[in-house]
Amino acid sequence: MEGESEDAARTDRRQRHASILDVAALAGVSPSTVSRSLRGHDSVATATRQRVAEAARELAYTVSPHASGLASGRTLTVGVVVPFVTRWYFANAVAGAHDVLSAAGFDVLLYHLGDAAARDRFFDRMPLARRVDAVLTLSLPLTEEHTLALRALDMPLVTLGARLDGVSSVRIDDVAATRNAVHHLLHQGHEEIAMITAREDDEAFGFLARPDRVDGYRQALAAAGLAGREDVVVAETYGIEGGASAMARLMERPRLPTAVLAEYDEVAIGALRTLRRSSVPVPGRISVIGVDDHEMSSVLDLTTMAQPVREQGAIAARLLLDQLEGRAGAPVDVVVPTRLVVRSSTGPPQPA
Amino acid sequence: MEGESEDAARTDRRQRHASILDVAALAGVSPSTVSRSLRGHDSVATATRQRVAEAARELAYTVSPHASGLASGRTLTVGVVVPFVTRWYFANAVAGAHDVLSAAGFDVLLYHLGDAAARDRFFDRMPLARRVDAVLTLSLPLTEEHTLALRALDMPLVTLGARLDGVSSVRIDDVAATRNAVHHLLHQGHEEIAMITAREDDEAFGFLARPDRVDGYRQALAAAGLAGREDVVVAETYGIEGGASAMARLMERPRLPTAVLAEYDEVAIGALRTLRRSSVPVPGRISVIGVDDHEMSSVLDLTTMAQPVREQGAIAARLLLDQLEGRAGAPVDVVVPTRLVVRSSTGPPQPA
Repeated sequence: MEGESEDAARTDRRQRHASILDVAALAGVSPSTVSRSLRGHDSVATATRQRVAEAARELAYTVSPHASGLASGRTLTVGVVVPFVTRWYFANAVAGAHDVLSAAGFDVLLYHLGDAAARDRFFDRMPLARRVDAVLTLSLPLTEEHTLALRALDMPLVTLGARLDGVSSVRIDDVAATRNAVHHLLHQGHEEIAMITAREDDEAFGFLARPDRVDGYRQALAAAGLAGREDVVVAETYGIEGGASAMARLMERPRLPTAVLAEYDEVAIGALRTLRRSSVPVPGRISVIGVDDHEMSSVLDLTTMAQPVREQGAIAARLLLDQLEGRAGAPVDVVVPTRLVVRSSTGPPQPA
Repeated sequence: MEGESEDAARTDRRQRHASILDVAALAGVSPSTVSRSLRGHDSVATATRQRVAEAARELAYTVSPHASGLASGRTLTVGVVVPFVTRWYFANAVAGAHDVLSAAGFDVLLYHLGDAAARDRFFDRMPLARRVDAVLTLSLPLTEEHTLALRALDMPLVTLGARLDGVSSVRIDDVAATRNAVHHLLHQGHEEIAMITAREDDEAFGFLARPDRVDGYRQALAAAGLAGREDVVVAETYGIEGGASAMARLMERPRLPTAVLAEYDEVAIGALRTLRRSSVPVPGRISVIGVDDHEMSSVLDLTTMAQPVREQGAIAARLLLDQLEGRAGAPVDVVVPTRLVVRSSTGPPQPA
């Protein structure tokens, strides 16, 4: 028995060294012929198939467990369902998941539900069944009907940036993120702290609103004895433009707050643009803090609560792989920490 | 005959006005039931099917030619093959294509070939055949073998940001874009103009290098009698970090150029970060211009050659729809114009 497992380990090591390219070179055929041949496709001539098999044997090469799954009807594909692929958060979460899945031999199929029509079509047609082996959903607001449709697929399922009963999830603690952002401002001496939130346009698309982030803001103010001093401004549109116009509305008031917490960095960046164009000193006259650590935040010196987005995508992908390989136990809820990144957009309030 | 085509036109107009939602409301069922019912799914009860049919008749609503194609084995899905979905250009091109395709009743399947392994698997398995009706490729460097594999699918094919023999394409004129960027700098009086290009890491992944942009830079300098004054710096990595370190290398020299053209805005933004951190005045000491009009460029007041990315995605999608509906003639090469957007990162050179 011991000898056998040693042999297995040795074979395993050798397998890792020989690639499909080595086999192709030795057999004098293209990699895709090797692949088709080893998977038993009819399109490969018998003589070629024998040559490939010999080369593979010589190099101790076998198709990976995933690849061999093809023959058993597996698609070796993971479906990722995402509302908006243009947004930084989603694009990076997808990239993080892609890296892990690709390394494990899986393709990634992105279902981009950019609007309500696309989402309805998706849940109507439910095109996942014969196309993918597992599903990762990103921050999708799921009705009970949607949830049932996904469960009915009876395949591995993980959700990122949202929770779903009985399904493993990966996310940050949104309440803690904004609570800690407010703590930073309080420690600097701010008491007039406004928050710009993203528009909760559930009706238009149903993008997951994040009331949790507003909760964290309210909790931190209440704990500091500032209950009743909440000042929540709702941005009319998503992202930079939404943040820019929300800041413009704040500036129409007779009195500015001394600090602004933006629900996410793109909103904060829009607010910074309005402030700069109006020559309002940051942080001299007003401090600005965001949530995310968007790639542009370091360029703009924006203080923010950083969340590791690619890493969350990678963790979600590993949870899916565990399920695919039968290694998963009960569903888990992985909460990854955020951390304060202090840059120069926040500072103590200045006497006017 | 004339009466018939008038009727058809009238019906066509009415069809555009009644939506699946109207039919659903009138029949008192969900939109997805309307959809399933009109497509003849067995899962809809006969009575319901009759109610839906009556409502559809009353509103002169029929499922679109695309939707009815479902019965004939069409997937109503367009495959979009993209190297890097995290990058602004790709994400926005995909979003532009998605909007048009979704409005026409098509789903979008994104094939994200984030690395060489994923690309090889893609062309090895060629998973498009039974999954999609048409293919859009974005800036993919295609070998002859890849091109043959795509053509062998024998389905509508459009390429964006690259050219492929005998295939319709949508792109900007990269040579003209950087030539005009240099003209802007020349008009301001600059003669020492460096260019930071993206690393052409064809070997690692085969991302389409854009030598055309360097050509435009060289051509403009030559036309201005500055041949031999070219100064091309290659960024080691993609995007902001690549631009930042390339600018840092430029600053190690005894003498800075008075202006820098970055191959695309993310590189320019990285360069701006290095300059700001080194307290080098922009444009007082050095002017910076990019190509793209990235969403952050307005925030950073970056002068740039703007290209309409979402629009290019939309045009490519319409070309695909034309092919799907048999309305396409010979392949076309659509070149969309770029335009100079002057912001405050460029200005006349200052005497040192």
